[in-house]
Amino acid sequence: MTWGRRPTITLTTDYGGEDGYAGILKGVILRICPDATLVDITHEVPPRDVLAATLTLRRAVPYFPPDTVHLVVVDPGVGTSRRAVAAISPQGVFVGPDNGIPMGVLPADLIGVRLVHLDRPQYWLPAHSATFQGRDIFAPVAAYLAAGASLVDVGSPIVAESLAPTPWPNPLKATGCVVGTVIHVDHFGNLISNIDRSLLEQFTVGKVAIESVQAGRLVDTYGDRAPGQLIAYFGSSGLLEFAVVNGNAATTLNLRTGACVRVAVSPAPHCDAAA
Amino acid sequence: MTWGRRPTITLTTDYGGEDGYAGILKGVILRICPDATLVDITHEVPPRDVLAATLTLRRAVPYFPPDTVHLVVVDPGVGTSRRAVAAISPQGVFVGPDNGIPMGVLPADLIGVRLVHLDRPQYWLPAHSATFQGRDIFAPVAAYLAAGASLVDVGSPIVAESLAPTPWPNPLKATGCVVGTVIHVDHFGNLISNIDRSLLEQFTVGKVAIESVQAGRLVDTYGDRAPGQLIAYFGSSGLLEFAVVNGNAATTLNLRTGACVRVAVSPAPHCDAAA
Amino acid sequence: MTWGRRPTITLTTDYGGEDGYAGILKGVILRICPDATLVDITHEVPPRDVLAATLTLRRAVPYFPPDTVHLVVVDPGVGTSRRAVAAISPQGVFVGPDNGIPMGVLPADLIGVRLVHLDRPQYWLPAHSATFQGRDIFAPVAAYLAAGASLVDVGSPIVAESLAPTPWPNPLKATGCVVGTVIHVDHFGNLISNIDRSLLEQFTVGKVAIESVQAGRLVDTYGDRAPGQLIAYFGSSGLLEFAVVNGNAATTLNLRTGACVRVAVSPAPHCDAAA
Repeated sequence: MTWGRRPTITLTTDYGGEDGYAGILKGVILRICPDATLVDITHEVPPRDVLAATLTLRRAVPYFPPDTVHLVVVDPGVGTSRRAVAAISPQGVFVGPDNGIPMGVLPADLIGVRLVHLDRPQYWLPAHSATFQGRDIFAPVAAYLAAGASLVDVGSPIVAESLAPTPWPNPLKATGCVVGTVIHVDHFGNLISNIDRSLLEQFTVGKVAIESVQAGRLVDTYGDRAPGQLIAYFGSSGLLEFAVVNGNAATTLNLRTGACVRVAVSPAPHCDAAA
Repeated sequence: MTWGRRPTITLTTDYGGEDGYAGILKGVILRICPDATLVDITHEVPPRDVLAATLTLRRAVPYFPPDTVHLVVVDPGVGTSRRAVAAISPQGVFVGPDNGIPMGVLPADLIGVRLVHLDRPQYWLPAHSATFQGRDIFAPVAAYLAAGASLVDVGSPIVAESLAPTPWPNPLKATGCVVGTVIHVDHFGNLISNIDRSLLEQFTVGKVAIESVQAGRLVDTYGDRAPGQLIAYFGSSGLLEFAVVNGNAATTLNLRTGACVRVAVSPAPHCDAAA
Repeated sequence: MTWGRRPTITLTTDYGGEDGYAGILKGVILRICPDATLVDITHEVPPRDVLAATLTLRRAVPYFPPDTVHLVVVDPGVGTSRRAVAAISPQGVFVGPDNGIPMGVLPADLIGVRLVHLDRPQYWLPAHSATFQGRDIFAPVAAYLAAGASLVDVGSPIVAESLAPTPWPNPLKATGCVVGTVIHVDHFGNLISNIDRSLLEQFTVGKVAIESVQAGRLVDTYGDRAPGQLIAYFGSSGLLEFAVVNGNAATTLNLRTGACVRVAVSPAPHCDAAA
């Protein structure tokens, strides 16, 4: 890569803010790539939750410059034989463990995607621990890529089929409805499902329910109902969400990740085998 | 605006840290204004609390360069008809919803203030949602302003009298005392009131009380009393505060926002009608 | 100092994220040193906990460029007569109160260390409060140092022997074992002790226990045991740690800072007087 301006590196981890671990990654990066603009996406991914990290990145990555390097370290497999990988796609560059996040974040058609296994210790810190590979492997590789190293410098090419599968659950088509699940509760208590607008656009959409609670028909935005009302709508990333206007849907309904979501649709879809 | 150095953009929101929403704003900004220095003031404003955001900005803005663009998105009215606005003042540039925060942050005399209604979609993201205007309207406008657009490029001039009023409560003058209220409890448990040093300088100040607890006379700083003692003092932004030396006043006194504060003063002030 | 590139300033405080206090420090810095790259190490140090701050800095500082200015404001003594100091060492520049953190972060041999007492108000903000010296003294001094001021510009030289002692507890050598203590519980619930790898390298190491719980022999990394197992290992900074594989050791064992750690060693060490 060559850059006409300062390179951007984002950081997404489950490190939390209290220990300074994310700050350490930034120190490592700045020693290698002093001109980097560093952006925290979040360090509050629930510990080892690769699905939550996948959702966060799917929402954020399209809004960054396409030459951004996204450093993603949510790593239930640190200290095992899971691979370290990097990828280039038309949306950005990704560096992190091969734990399902890369496969969930790369474009489904894999057009323009190139992948490597990070097997070149000369791009790691000289002394690398067995427990903090974010510091010792992923941060320096991200920094070298941002500073101009090419993908094949830092690792050996691999094929996408060898990547760990994404944990993203697909919604099911059943008799007269589409069935999904809540995959995230955000800071405002909004319940975010795995049902994408593009899936429902194939149908005429009727009423929506979450567990045993009826939410009525889809609305466009919060202002369409009075404060305190439960609404269902397509959120800002195109996923079906539930909110209580000026309130907190998760605490009001006492629901959380895993809650069942049903959308009545017509004509009846071809049922998925499993539904 | 033209800039002799890298422009600074601050971010103040109630997005929290866990979802990556603030990171998304930064991606949007960096695509438009790659040289921006981005500073988080806070993303932990209590959800939709425009008074807390007003206090935070009043304390922070004077310490930033006066050409800083302050992006402020605490937005109970997202998805309603409340306006999007931007302002220039001698203290800085502000971008956000017209929800009482602009009126609470701009100088009271409005000298040097210019205001616009953000009604120019060519400065927004091409596809703008009805629920995430921080990403789709406010962040791109802030970035264009930081990159050199002028205020009248991004919107149509409006007058300050049309802005939503600030929620900031003014203290009252009563017989022999000034009566205020706790408007914020900070990270250390210090209780911050709405009584400003400049108001009390008109009087001889006597004893201070918070709810039914006597705090004695004002002291200058923590070291003036022993650890564990309750003190009243002017905090670092000139507001009357209560602290427990090396402790947490909010938990010790079991008090929070809204607690009543009374300051004995002489000579007796002219009473406010409402007191 | 002269700089061939943009200077880096890190921030470590106990301010929390919700009040915007850390953002204020950054505004102060950017007015003095607009080109600074600002890195948060953490603002979540437990209030006034100088030991936790010392651990955080010991782990982070070695990974930053050696000309980095580390602004450290955890300050139980604000408003007392404790001194404000700055130091240069081969690992970096430090600015903050003299409260035991400088002595705990500077190299033990003090080679290459120079120290000053910050007694030059011309490098502070013109109006300085008695309660927010991070804003009024430490941030501007850090910014001036990053912008090229020399250490003797900002204060008068002092000797290291005059610094407040570090609160870091040293492990004890007892009959057949080394006895330490948990000094930090991290975001993942890992229990971090004060026993350093270099101390144990003098011995043949046997089994390890924390309070009444046996952790067996040291392992290299998480993958060496099954999920749910308690392990003891040297963490990424060389300190003996305890973790539950893919779990949370602190909540599983119901242990916290102060828990007793024992490592069986042979040959028997010379006992410390106090053990």
